[in-house]
Amino acid sequence: MERRFTAEIDPSMAGEKATLVGWVHEIRDLGGITFLILRDREGFAQVTLPKKRVEAELLGIVKHISRESVIRVTGTIKEDERAPGGYEILPHEIRVLSYADSPLPLDPTGKVKAELDTRLDSRFMDLRRPEVLAIFKIRSYVLDTIRNFFKEHGFIEINTPKIVATATEGGTALFPITYFNREAFLSQSPQLFKQIMMSAGFDRVWEIAPIFRAEEHDTTRHLNEATSIDIEASFMDYEDVMRILEDLIARVYESVKRECEKELSDLDIRIEVPDTPFRRITYTEAIDLLKSTDNPEFSELVWGDDLSASCEHELGRLIGEHYFITDWPTDSKPYYTQPAENPEISLSFDLMHPRMELASGSERIHDLDLLISRIDAMGLNPDSFEFYLRAFKFGIPPHSGWGLGLERLLMTMLGLENIREAVLFPRDMRRLSP
Amino acid sequence: MERRFTAEIDPSMAGEKATLVGWVHEIRDLGGITFLILRDREGFAQVTLPKKRVEAELLGIVKHISRESVIRVTGTIKEDERAPGGYEILPHEIRVLSYADSPLPLDPTGKVKAELDTRLDSRFMDLRRPEVLAIFKIRSYVLDTIRNFFKEHGFIEINTPKIVATATEGGTALFPITYFNREAFLSQSPQLFKQIMMSAGFDRVWEIAPIFRAEEHDTTRHLNEATSIDIEASFMDYEDVMRILEDLIARVYESVKRECEKELSDLDIRIEVPDTPFRRITYTEAIDLLKSTDNPEFSELVWGDDLSASCEHELGRLIGEHYFITDWPTDSKPYYTQPAENPEISLSFDLMHPRMELASGSERIHDLDLLISRIDAMGLNPDSFEFYLRAFKFGIPPHSGWGLGLERLLMTMLGLENIREAVLFPRDMRRLSP
Repeated sequence: MERRFTAEIDPSMAGEKATLVGWVHEIRDLGGITFLILRDREGFAQVTLPKKRVEAELLGIVKHISRESVIRVTGTIKEDERAPGGYEILPHEIRVLSYADSPLPLDPTGKVKAELDTRLDSRFMDLRRPEVLAIFKIRSYVLDTIRNFFKEHGFIEINTPKIVATATEGGTALFPITYFNREAFLSQSPQLFKQIMMSAGFDRVWEIAPIFRAEEHDTTRHLNEATSIDIEASFMDYEDVMRILEDLIARVYESVKRECEKELSDLDIRIEVPDTPFRRITYTEAIDLLKSTDNPEFSELVWGDDLSASCEHELGRLIGEHYFITDWPTDSKPYYTQPAENPEISLSFDLMHPRMELASGSERIHDLDLLISRIDAMGLNPDSFEFYLRAFKFGIPPHSGWGLGLERLLMTMLGLENIREAVLFPRDMRRLSP
Repeated sequence: MERRFTAEIDPSMAGEKATLVGWVHEIRDLGGITFLILRDREGFAQVTLPKKRVEAELLGIVKHISRESVIRVTGTIKEDERAPGGYEILPHEIRVLSYADSPLPLDPTGKVKAELDTRLDSRFMDLRRPEVLAIFKIRSYVLDTIRNFFKEHGFIEINTPKIVATATEGGTALFPITYFNREAFLSQSPQLFKQIMMSAGFDRVWEIAPIFRAEEHDTTRHLNEATSIDIEASFMDYEDVMRILEDLIARVYESVKRECEKELSDLDIRIEVPDTPFRRITYTEAIDLLKSTDNPEFSELVWGDDLSASCEHELGRLIGEHYFITDWPTDSKPYYTQPAENPEISLSFDLMHPRMELASGSERIHDLDLLISRIDAMGLNPDSFEFYLRAFKFGIPPHSGWGLGLERLLMTMLGLENIREAVLFPRDMRRLSP
């Protein structure tokens, strides 16, 4: 008999037979009656065994079954207002498909709280908790929403190599690989490749893929392997791609709010859809705003300084919603960033959530000579970028783009404390397993 | 004025103004009239400059423009049956956005044939050819079709780590990484993680992601970085997931045939949708079939032998359509493969195209003791798999799954000679750039 998810059954099916499969979430033996709560991906079902009306064999099975064992139950659906989903199953057959050892490494009901590290060590068990599963159902749904958005906007999916010969930004935060006796690296960003695709005439491209950064950060908002959502678009300026970005963020919030009601309720959160357009402040205005506070920490700030995490926090507190910081100092941005008419300033932006930076983007340089001079000015060697620079020699459109961190988007939308909660099997300086 | 794609304009818009952007594909100066063919992602448009009726400035620009430069043209749409799309543009304004150097590294009209290696060296230019672009439009479309298929079938997307501590199958074909002074590897397959997700209760999962194999193959059908389409499904046997796989293949062919007419015509190919169910032959039948041919190469084959590339070719020639080879010798398959009642044989399958293997899958072992004994039997150390084995201790459903190579699917569907043609920037033993 075809199995069904617990959520596919409702009280109107009373009298019908059904087969359910899942985990033994709880067993309550009340003497005359035993309740077994079965859990599957979509919810819970109550299997009811009244001692007098159930075969002794079934009672024997249930007596010896351990919590979290996997079972298959076939029985008759009966209406029961008090049970999850408004129905119970009176079983004809119960088969144990896999016995669970005890003690369990974690409490899957979540009644006993565990540290994140302990949870990640036994991630297979941690993920059985509905409020953890909910994060990953939302993650899957968000990815689907983003891809549909790109499709509607005429973007083509690309897949660029993750094994590369050169650092994107010449930084040192690279993981080295041994590639058939040659030196290679894990890609930090699809940046150079998505720009090459502009020269290739793909016009508008997107990629959602892992990026790898060997940064020695040990914070709640950094990962060494993360998922980057990237676009690049020809004949667009930085305002154009900022509009795409804010529309995308609003669409994601809207869709999750509308379609993931159960998951949001499992997480016990509500989300507010941000209004668009997002507020835009220039880097210069951000510096002035910080200096205008009473906080002595910011009184020494000068134009050109990086905005530290505490600057970001203060701005987030003052602004209180998503916003863009635009027009960054040219020297604070990567070499491929287009300078404005005043060459000290660049046509660039960061998308900020009050808690942290989510995305970074800009108009790109498409003039080869300017690009080479910027690579030089950053102290990098243009020769290492030959494969990239060639694409600027034979007709390349003006273009703009951005990269958005998927885990940061999820973390801020769902109010997660630690970015690791948004990844199934996070990788950081200390963690390489599971 | 908002730019439009060439394909967004049709003769019914005659008299309207339009702005087009793209590459100078060709210029034909016939004395009294000059034709400039502009190319964008969606097609071609003819810009017509009759000497007597066009401003001298425009003629001057066109005279000095090089092929493959990027331009922006604003003009009036006029019906013209002989022009691409049935219209021409009478320009009011032409701006050169980026000059192309000459000579060009490749002929983007494809009239001059180039070797694949030369094409890949100047991939940005090669991709401008409509028949190359068509492959990647189809690739993008195929990925979208596959994801929608998984969504319809109740699968959840997962993203598993690409930096791992242990080889999936204990093989040696791994790229080593230096990970904060520890040894790590690039993931060969999401296999162990997608099985852990079965223990986590996700029921049905999919992932489309890069896989990395340090195999020293130098053939037209191997890549060292490829894209793997993976599923894993609980409470399903190997027949269940074979049905999903053949339905998916048929869906992809059907959708591409229906929705990618222009791209198929740019590639100058027709595709036939394969009938389902695909033919199934057991490994034993495959051996018998090969031995029954006159070919002396196969007369020495004995049960348990690998099927070499020439075996695959001969079977493909005899069968002539997609087929499954099932029930492989247990010892020829990875340790996680479920043996049948006769333990010499496994509940496994390969999906074959007449040209090559496309996918591989099986029912998986979910009994911990059997799994450990199979790891042992393969000469591997169960201790290295502790993070994986723990997930089998606390209730794990029976499950099955497969992995399908995206590039092989595209290569066989589109009749490409070399698998590298299905990747934007292929990685192989010799190629690490662009």
